[in-house]
Amino acid sequence: MKIFSVYGYTDSGKTTTIENIIKELRKRRFTVGSVKEIHYEEFEIDKEGTNTSRHKEAGSQLVTARGYHETDILYQKKLSVEEILSFYNHDYVILEGVTDYNMPKILTAKSIAEIRERIDDSVFVISGRVAEQISEYEGIPVINCMKNIDELTNLLINKVYDKLPDFSKNCCSECGYDCRTLGNKILRGEAKREDCSIKNTYTKLYIDDREIDMVPFVSKILNNAVLGVIKELDGYKKGSTIRIETKS
Amino acid sequence: MKIFSVYGYTDSGKTTTIENIIKELRKRRFTVGSVKEIHYEEFEIDKEGTNTSRHKEAGSQLVTARGYHETDILYQKKLSVEEILSFYNHDYVILEGVTDYNMPKILTAKSIAEIRERIDDSVFVISGRVAEQISEYEGIPVINCMKNIDELTNLLINKVYDKLPDFSKNCCSECGYDCRTLGNKILRGEAKREDCSIKNTYTKLYIDDREIDMVPFVSKILNNAVLGVIKELDGYKKGSTIRIETKS
Repeated sequence: MKIFSVYGYTDSGKTTTIENIIKELRKRRFTVGSVKEIHYEEFEIDKEGTNTSRHKEAGSQLVTARGYHETDILYQKKLSVEEILSFYNHDYVILEGVTDYNMPKILTAKSIAEIRERIDDSVFVISGRVAEQISEYEGIPVINCMKNIDELTNLLINKVYDKLPDFSKNCCSECGYDCRTLGNKILRGEAKREDCSIKNTYTKLYIDDREIDMVPFVSKILNNAVLGVIKELDGYKKGSTIRIETKS
Repeated sequence: MKIFSVYGYTDSGKTTTIENIIKELRKRRFTVGSVKEIHYEEFEIDKEGTNTSRHKEAGSQLVTARGYHETDILYQKKLSVEEILSFYNHDYVILEGVTDYNMPKILTAKSIAEIRERIDDSVFVISGRVAEQISEYEGIPVINCMKNIDELTNLLINKVYDKLPDFSKNCCSECGYDCRTLGNKILRGEAKREDCSIKNTYTKLYIDDREIDMVPFVSKILNNAVLGVIKELDGYKKGSTIRIETKS
């Protein structure tokens, strides 16, 4: 699954950029999901007085509304990006206005001053209203999402890599870096996605069918714990492939 | 996890009954979630013109809105009860207006005629406006949720059992029945929840793709060894399905 963010100030062209990208990715037959970060305190999708808000007000801690054509799961807290992504299994997930995660980013801006204020090393292309004024900013292409959506989409398909974990250097630095630094190096062509050693370990863990990233250390403990139990069983032989399915 | 449904015609007192039950269960320190089935064609939580609806209209196949105090996962289809319940790990989940699943039910009605039309073997108590007229219907108690919420809650705590599967007789009849029949027998005191032989914890082990039989004792050790490692990982939640693939 490939993820990226589109961020920038209000009225810089975020949603328009995203709409054009979604349309183009779908046209190219990719599956696409999206997340919208809403930056105002009072946001409430389910207004007072509806039957589902009556459940919430009575004390229901997770309310779902199921209609004929949609099902809405209404969590009463801000979930982490990691938790939200666990609902997705699309080719691309686009996060609007989300900056607190390790992923490539598209910055939208109205002016060069706005670019200067918001840009960081994870930005691989700039879009939004400023694309009417310039076509490059310090080596980063600036592309108009309405006139040049083909070029913008080609670039993002080329740049956006399979989702990396988001570990700090203390937690895992098998590739030599923390995960954010590796991500930025991949964008600049100084490293490869395969340099992340987490995918290369041979113990894979799936929780509810979603693969869970484990640092090599944890992966080894899990492998040892499993082999510790099963190597005494009839049917075991060294070098065999093991699969365990269980419930917690 | 215990689940039950509250169903009945419009204006029979469904939501009021649910509000009172949720409040009382929370007062008794249970965790509670709920699901509301919305029976009108045009239901759409996210109205035209909002930024999240712009994502959807552009072609995003799963949209999430994340605010400061809530996160809304907006599926563009009617999910099954089984799929919806996979988001929950509460003590009780109350389903309003849902009848297409195997679970104990509370029927709400305005009149005896309405009871007659809607009642089935999974109903263990009747509530709603009719409770102002009668206190029993063919052996089933009729309880006023406003005056006697204590009695209603005691009864439901006594009757509602840990969620059963919903298999047909062809699929599994280890207990002698299909799952709905077993559920109804439990409600009438003619069977026990433990008669369901599908254990809530099960562990399957495959070595080189061949299933290895394990006595329950070994199965539990393996389950404990696995959970001992993974329950500290991000992404783990109680009740989830675990799959591990490794090499020896």
